[in-house]
Amino acid sequence: MTTTIKGYDFDKGVNYEELVNSYVTTGIQSSNVGRAINIINKMLTWQPSEEEKKEYVEGDERLKRCTIYLGFTSEMMTSGLRDTFRYLVEHKCVDYIVTTAGAIETDIMKCFGNINIGDFYMKPEEVQGERHGNMIIPKEIIEKTKQWLKEFILDIQECQDTSMPFTPSQLITMMGERLNDTTSVITWAAKNNITIFCPALTDGLFGTCITELNEINPVRLVVDLVQDLRLVNSSTIHSVETGVIILGGGVMKHHIMNANLMRNGADFAVYINTAGDFDGSDASARPDEAVSWGKIKIESENVKVLAEASLVFPLIVSKTFAVTKRFDGKI
Amino acid sequence: MTTTIKGYDFDKGVNYEELVNSYVTTGIQSSNVGRAINIINKMLTWQPSEEEKKEYVEGDERLKRCTIYLGFTSEMMTSGLRDTFRYLVEHKCVDYIVTTAGAIETDIMKCFGNINIGDFYMKPEEVQGERHGNMIIPKEIIEKTKQWLKEFILDIQECQDTSMPFTPSQLITMMGERLNDTTSVITWAAKNNITIFCPALTDGLFGTCITELNEINPVRLVVDLVQDLRLVNSSTIHSVETGVIILGGGVMKHHIMNANLMRNGADFAVYINTAGDFDGSDASARPDEAVSWGKIKIESENVKVLAEASLVFPLIVSKTFAVTKRFDGKI
Amino acid sequence: MTTTIKGYDFDKGVNYEELVNSYVTTGIQSSNVGRAINIINKMLTWQPSEEEKKEYVEGDERLKRCTIYLGFTSEMMTSGLRDTFRYLVEHKCVDYIVTTAGAIETDIMKCFGNINIGDFYMKPEEVQGERHGNMIIPKEIIEKTKQWLKEFILDIQECQDTSMPFTPSQLITMMGERLNDTTSVITWAAKNNITIFCPALTDGLFGTCITELNEINPVRLVVDLVQDLRLVNSSTIHSVETGVIILGGGVMKHHIMNANLMRNGADFAVYINTAGDFDGSDASARPDEAVSWGKIKIESENVKVLAEASLVFPLIVSKTFAVTKRFDGKI
Amino acid sequence: MTTTIKGYDFDKGVNYEELVNSYVTTGIQSSNVGRAINIINKMLTWQPSEEEKKEYVEGDERLKRCTIYLGFTSEMMTSGLRDTFRYLVEHKCVDYIVTTAGAIETDIMKCFGNINIGDFYMKPEEVQGERHGNMIIPKEIIEKTKQWLKEFILDIQECQDTSMPFTPSQLITMMGERLNDTTSVITWAAKNNITIFCPALTDGLFGTCITELNEINPVRLVVDLVQDLRLVNSSTIHSVETGVIILGGGVMKHHIMNANLMRNGADFAVYINTAGDFDGSDASARPDEAVSWGKIKIESENVKVLAEASLVFPLIVSKTFAVTKRFDGKI
Repeated sequence: MTTTIKGYDFDKGVNYEELVNSYVTTGIQSSNVGRAINIINKMLTWQPSEEEKKEYVEGDERLKRCTIYLGFTSEMMTSGLRDTFRYLVEHKCVDYIVTTAGAIETDIMKCFGNINIGDFYMKPEEVQGERHGNMIIPKEIIEKTKQWLKEFILDIQECQDTSMPFTPSQLITMMGERLNDTTSVITWAAKNNITIFCPALTDGLFGTCITELNEINPVRLVVDLVQDLRLVNSSTIHSVETGVIILGGGVMKHHIMNANLMRNGADFAVYINTAGDFDGSDASARPDEAVSWGKIKIESENVKVLAEASLVFPLIVSKTFAVTKRFDGKI
Repeated sequence: MTTTIKGYDFDKGVNYEELVNSYVTTGIQSSNVGRAINIINKMLTWQPSEEEKKEYVEGDERLKRCTIYLGFTSEMMTSGLRDTFRYLVEHKCVDYIVTTAGAIETDIMKCFGNINIGDFYMKPEEVQGERHGNMIIPKEIIEKTKQWLKEFILDIQECQDTSMPFTPSQLITMMGERLNDTTSVITWAAKNNITIFCPALTDGLFGTCITELNEINPVRLVVDLVQDLRLVNSSTIHSVETGVIILGGGVMKHHIMNANLMRNGADFAVYINTAGDFDGSDASARPDEAVSWGKIKIESENVKVLAEASLVFPLIVSKTFAVTKRFDGKI
Repeated sequence: MTTTIKGYDFDKGVNYEELVNSYVTTGIQSSNVGRAINIINKMLTWQPSEEEKKEYVEGDERLKRCTIYLGFTSEMMTSGLRDTFRYLVEHKCVDYIVTTAGAIETDIMKCFGNINIGDFYMKPEEVQGERHGNMIIPKEIIEKTKQWLKEFILDIQECQDTSMPFTPSQLITMMGERLNDTTSVITWAAKNNITIFCPALTDGLFGTCITELNEINPVRLVVDLVQDLRLVNSSTIHSVETGVIILGGGVMKHHIMNANLMRNGADFAVYINTAGDFDGSDASARPDEAVSWGKIKIESENVKVLAEASLVFPLIVSKTFAVTKRFDGKI
Repeated sequence: MTTTIKGYDFDKGVNYEELVNSYVTTGIQSSNVGRAINIINKMLTWQPSEEEKKEYVEGDERLKRCTIYLGFTSEMMTSGLRDTFRYLVEHKCVDYIVTTAGAIETDIMKCFGNINIGDFYMKPEEVQGERHGNMIIPKEIIEKTKQWLKEFILDIQECQDTSMPFTPSQLITMMGERLNDTTSVITWAAKNNITIFCPALTDGLFGTCITELNEINPVRLVVDLVQDLRLVNSSTIHSVETGVIILGGGVMKHHIMNANLMRNGADFAVYINTAGDFDGSDASARPDEAVSWGKIKIESENVKVLAEASLVFPLIVSKTFAVTKRFDGKI
C-alpha cells in the first residue's frame, strides 16, 4: 500500500487540525513527525491480551498498559518544553523519566525567576548571565538555586542512613517535594510517583554545591548508582510492553535503551534529535542500531525524527498525550 | 527589553493559534521560527514613505510594497510543500521565485501521477522508481514527463528567434502555460506573471531530453543566461524594499542574495535550512556573512532557522501569508 | 572476510605513510577515507578489456582509461584546496571539472592578491572585506577582479558569433587563457584541454559585471547552456568507464551525476561532504540514492565521506593522484 | 597580522610534515585543526612563573605543568582511536580522563577479541554481532566481557568497605589492574595513576552484569558519585593551569567543563565534535558558551574543530604529544 505525497491546502483556510494531520503525507522529516504521532498513540492505546494479563500480579498498574519512558537533555528544560514536560508529568502521561543534571537544576531555577531569550552569537562579555544556546540564565537565579541546593544537602545528610545511601532518583524526588512548586516537573513527578533517573546527578550545580560546602565542613553524603540501576532495569523487565520517547542524545538516551536491553527490546521507539548517524556515536544512532543490540525489538514500530525537539514535540503532544486517553481511562 | 522563556500550556487544551504563537518564547530554534513569522509579516505590511514613493514611476507595483523573493530546492517540490508553494503563487503572495531544475520537473511530474512516501534507507533494488530522500517517484511519471518535455522542446525550437534566444525563465513560463494545471506552481506563476528564475535549467530532465532528441535530429535551441541575469538584477535594483525567504541552499540561495547585492542588500531575510555554518559553504552561511558582502543590509531584520523546511514552513505560512494582507489589499 | 579495527601505533614514531594507511582500519569516517583512497586508485589504474577497446575509435584518449570528473564548490577554491586542484589540473589527473561561479572568480581573485584567514563569528562590521566562512577576501582584490572581468566581457562581445553563442565552459577557457597565471586552476585547465562546466556561470561577479556594464552600454552577450549540456552528457556516453569525485553539494553534484545518468551510471563514485541525508536534498543524498536513478551503477564501488573536504582531500590526494600513475603512464 | 590562505603544494612531492603544517593556512576546518595543534603544544610547554610556583606545595607534580584533561565518547574506543588513547596514557601525556561506560567496556572487550569494520546501513538481521556505527562487535567478546565483569563484581563486593564505598574511578582502576593488558587504556591508566572519571559507570554492561547477578544473589555493591566529584573538582582547583581536549559531546564534555568552573575556567580548550551549535545542547556549544559560564577563561586560547574525531585526532597527536616534550622532560 502506497501513501501519496500531499501537503496542506491553505485554500481551506488555516485549519491546524488538518495541517498537522497533513505532516504524515508531506514527506521528508514531516512524515517522520506523522509516524511519531502514530507510534505514540499506539503506546497509549496498547492493551495486553488476556494471556499477557495472566502473567502479572493483580493490581499491578503495568499490567494494564504500555510503560512509557521519556528522556530529554538539559537545554530542553531551559526552553519552553519544560511546560510540556510538566503537563505530561502532572497528568501521568509517562511512567519514567531519564535526564541529565542540568535539566533538574533548570527546573529548580525557573521556580526562582525567569530565563530569557538571547542569541546564539552573543559575545561572552555581552551575556548578562550564563548562555545556554540562545537562552540566557540570569546569575541571580543560579545563586538562589545554589543556596537552595546547599540547604537541601545539609538537611538530607542529617537523615542519611549509611547502610542504605540515597540514589539520584531518591534525591530528585526529595528535591521535588521540598520545592513544592506547581510549575515544576520534579515536583509533579514526586507527587505522582514518577521516577526520574539521572545517573550523573553530581555533574552540575548539585556537585558544585557539595564541593563548596565541603570546603567549610566535610560533606558526608553518599550517592549510590547501584540501587537506581536495579530500579530502571527491573522496570523494563517487569513491563508487559514498553515504549520510549527520547529527545536528544547522550547518557540519557543510552540509559533508557540499555534498560530496555534487559527485556530484549522496546516495543515502540521514537527518537527526536539533530544528530546525523555518521559519527558512530550512540547519540546519533538510528533505531536499527539499537535493534542489533536487542534494545529495540525487530518487530517494533520505531522512527527517528531529525529535528531540534522544540520545533516538533509540542505538535506531537497536541496529537497524542493532549487528546488520546490511555485505554484504562487515564490520559 | 527581555523576553521570558515560556512554552505552551496544554492545560488550556489544544489551541493551535496560541501554540504556534508560543514558539517565539520557547527558545532554541522555535524562537527562530517565531522571528521568521515576525519578519515575514513585516515584509507583507511594509509601506513606503511619501518620499520613497516619489522616486518611482506611477503605476509601478513595486512602489507600493516590499518585493518578496522565494527560493527553494527541488526536494521541497517533491514533498508536500508544493501545495504551499502553489498557494503562494496562485494568490500572488511572492513576487519572484528562484529554484533548481529538479523543482520545475517535479512540479510537472505531479501533473502526471502521484509521488509516494518511501524510506531513506531502502536498498536501491527495493525502490520501485527513483528515490528522492524518503520519497519515491514512479518511473512511469518520469517517462510521461520526458515525453511531454520532448514535445515541448520540438515545438519551441520552431518558434525560436535566433537573435533573441529563450532564457530559462521564459521557458518555464511557456512550460507553465502549456501544462495549464491548477495544481501546478509553474502554471500559476505563468498566469500571475511571477518570474521563476532557474539559472541551471538544463541540469535535469530538460537537459536529458535535449540530449536524447539530439541523437535523432540536431536540436537547435539556445538557452541564454544573460537576459535572465539582467532581469533578476534589475528587479532588486528597482525595488524600494526587498525581502527574501530562502528554503535550503545551493545555487538558488546564492542567486537571490547575489541579486540583492545589486541594491546594497535585502531589507528582510529569512533562511531556513539544515546546514551548519562550519563548512564555509554559501549554503550554510548565516545572514551576517551576507551582510559582510552587502547582500543583506546591516540594519535589516534577518534570521536563520536551522530546520528541515517541511517541518516549519507550513506553520510559518499559517501565521503570515495565509492571514496577513499586504497593505495594498492583496493577500 | 572481516577487517579488524586497528589504529595507528604512535610507539612506532610518526610515520605518516603508515598513519594514513591506518585510516582504513580505524572505523567511523576514517574507514570511509580509506575506501575513498582505494576507489580513486581503482579509477586511476582501471584498464579496458580487449573487447572494450574494440568498441572505440583509434586514438581516442578515453579508450585507454577511466574518465574522471571532479566537482567542488566555491569555498574550496577560496581555501587552500585551490593549490591541490591546480596540481590535479596541471598534471592532467582529472578529465572534467564541474563547479560554481564563485570558484571561477576566487581562482581569478587569488591572482590579484591574497585571501586571508579570519573567523566564522566575526561581526559584519569587523570584517575587512567579504567573509567566506572563516576566510576573508579583501575588497581591493574583488575590485581588481571586477575590472578584469569587465575588460574581458567587452573584448569577447566583439568577437561573438551570434549564430553560435559562447557557453560557460568556453568562457572559462577564454578566461583561463587570458589570465595566464601558473597558480590558476582555470589557466591550467585551458592549457590542458580540461573542460570546466559551470552551468550557472552568471550567478556571481561575472553577472554583476554584465549588469554594471549594461548600465553604460547594452551588453550584447549571449551565454548558452545547451551546447555545454550536450558536451557534458556526451562525455559520459562515450566513456568506457567513469569515476566521479565530488566535494560538497548543490548544482555541481547534481550536474555530474545527471550526466552519468546518460550512460546508466558511473562505475566509481566518491562523495565528500558535510550533509546528513535526512533532509531529502540532492546535496545530502547517499550514493545509493543515485543508484536508484541510474546515476551510479549498482555494481559500482562508491563511498560517501562525511567530512569537510579540506580536512581529508589533501590526505586522499597524497595516497592517490600524487603517487599513482594512470596505467597509460600519465600521472 | 593577517595569515594568507595557502594550501599544500604537491609539486614538492608528498611531504607529510609540511602537508600537516599547511592545515593552519588552508582555511575552513583545516585551520581549526592547525589551531588545535598550536593550543595543545602550548598546554604541553606551558611553565609556571616563579610566583605561581610559590603558591603550591613542594613536590606537587601539578606545580610544574599544565594539567591536561582528555575526554572522549565510547565509539572512539571502539574505533582505532583506542590505540592513540593507549599511547597517550602509557606515556603520561594527559593527567585525567573523563569518558562514558561504553568506552571502558570496549577497552576491555578488545582484550578478548577483535572488533571489525562493518557498514552504517547494514540491516539489523545482517549484523553478526552488535553494530556501533560502522563497527561490529562480535557477540562472543561481549559474552566474555560480561563473564569477566561478573567475576570482578563478585570479588570486589567481598572487599567492599561499607563506610567508604567504591567510586566509579576506583572501580575503573581496579578493572585496569585486573585486566593487566598492555593494549588496554585502563590498564595503563591504573599503572600510571591517571584517574579515569566516568560518572554514569553503571549505564552499560557493568550495570547489566549487576542486574543479572542480582537475580541469583543480592549484589551488595554501592557505587558512590560524591567522592569522585570531589576528586575531579579539587583536581582543577589545585591546578596552576588547565587544558582540556574533548572529543565528542554529552556528559563527559559537561563534566570536564563543569569541573573547570570550580577554578573559574580552563586556560586552554580544544573541542572536536560533529555537533552544530544550533540545538542549544551542551554537546554542541561553542567554547564561548563555556566562557559565559566561567568554564573557560575569557583570555584562554580555545578552538572547536567541527569534525568526526577519528579523521583528525591522529594528525593532531602526530604534531603534539608524539613529538612535543613537556617542559619538565616528560613527553
